Amino acid sequence: MEAFTLSSDFGYVVLVVVATVFLLQWLGIQVVMARKKYEVSYPRMYSDNDDRFNCVQRAHQNTLEVYPTYLILQIFGGLYAPKLGALCGLIWLAGRVAYALGYYTGDPEKRNRGAFGYIGLLTLLVCTVMFGLSLLGFI
Amino acid sequence: MEAFTLSSDFGYVVLVVVATVFLLQWLGIQVVMARKKYEVSYPRMYSDNDDRFNCVQRAHQNTLEVYPTYLILQIFGGLYAPKLGALCGLIWLAGRVAYALGYYTGDPEKRNRGAFGYIGLLTLLVCTVMFGLSLLGFI
Amino acid sequence: MEAFTLSSDFGYVVLVVVATVFLLQWLGIQVVMARKKYEVSYPRMYSDNDDRFNCVQRAHQNTLEVYPTYLILQIFGGLYAPKLGALCGLIWLAGRVAYALGYYTGDPEKRNRGAFGYIGLLTLLVCTVMFGLSLLGFI
Repeated sequence: MEAFTLSSDFGYVVLVVVATVFLLQWLGIQVVMARKKYEVSYPRMYSDNDDRFNCVQRAHQNTLEVYPTYLILQIFGGLYAPKLGALCGLIWLAGRVAYALGYYTGDPEKRNRGAFGYIGLLTLLVCTVMFGLSLLGFI
Repeated sequence: MEAFTLSSDFGYVVLVVVATVFLLQWLGIQVVMARKKYEVSYPRMYSDNDDRFNCVQRAHQNTLEVYPTYLILQIFGGLYAPKLGALCGLIWLAGRVAYALGYYTGDPEKRNRGAFGYIGLLTLLVCTVMFGLSLLGFI
Repeated sequence: MEAFTLSSDFGYVVLVVVATVFLLQWLGIQVVMARKKYEVSYPRMYSDNDDRFNCVQRAHQNTLEVYPTYLILQIFGGLYAPKLGALCGLIWLAGRVAYALGYYTGDPEKRNRGAFGYIGLLTLLVCTVMFGLSLLGFI
């Protein structure tokens, strides 16, 4: 056990996380607007007969589902490699925007346009494993 | 890079987070009770014909959806300003209780009674930005 | 306020978190396969007439719902007691596997086979409270 040091570069990680909070707000606003357009009122989550609305809703919900995983990998991976970690966070964020815009076409297959975001997420996963191993003294 | 210091006041942040875990349990118990009252069995998430149940379900689900965002802002913002951060967490928690009680009336509009919780969340967002900027040496 | 020390044993906590990320992927893959088997296409979340699919979907979704709570308790509890915390994380993980396998039988009641996972989660909760109290100097 020794004194923990935090790189000043971790500030980049913090600011990228802030950017992802705005991403979630943007996705949420699209759902609110789609509720008006397709007349799906609260507390209903999905439309029974209009999958165009459901595509907008799923783009938001799927991002929410993966967000905790992103966050924990962003924190741990970012502690190991702050600048690389922040860059990976931006790639993931861009991937989620592409995912949403693809989903918004109404063709679910086009959400896969955001698949490049996994490059960011997988790199963060590797950095997280490295963080764990380095703490344990294996590397 | 220098030794990282953790204010003892961060303990307040940790205890507020514990309180929010109990908030989620309370919201979940309301859904379990509503399942019995409105006869919605597992694995069904929503009732097709009774929006009073759906209001109870959504109060829980919406809080779950926003919880990761709250947590990351609570941690980062709380590292920057622990006492203020803990206070903001309590405001957010009270806001979610008011949101749920409003939703439980069966009128979705009344969930907005909990809107004051955003005061806590937005202040945590500002503290998080300050944390990032201070790490980078801008402030 | 004093220099923060991070036990090298926290590396075990980090690696257990990595294992839970793979848990989520496994649960997600089951849903993708169930979509093909029961012919539930995107963006539909649930089947209107086949609860066997809904059981598979719910095993994933419920784990996602509780995941942020697990993560924050894993971090804070793990900072207080890293080795015990990592062990609790493994118990929770095993509990979620048992929960999913129970749910996959198509009988929602059998998801309760994973209830032992709460032993891990509750112990992490206790460790988190201890972490908060120790920061504040009460213990």
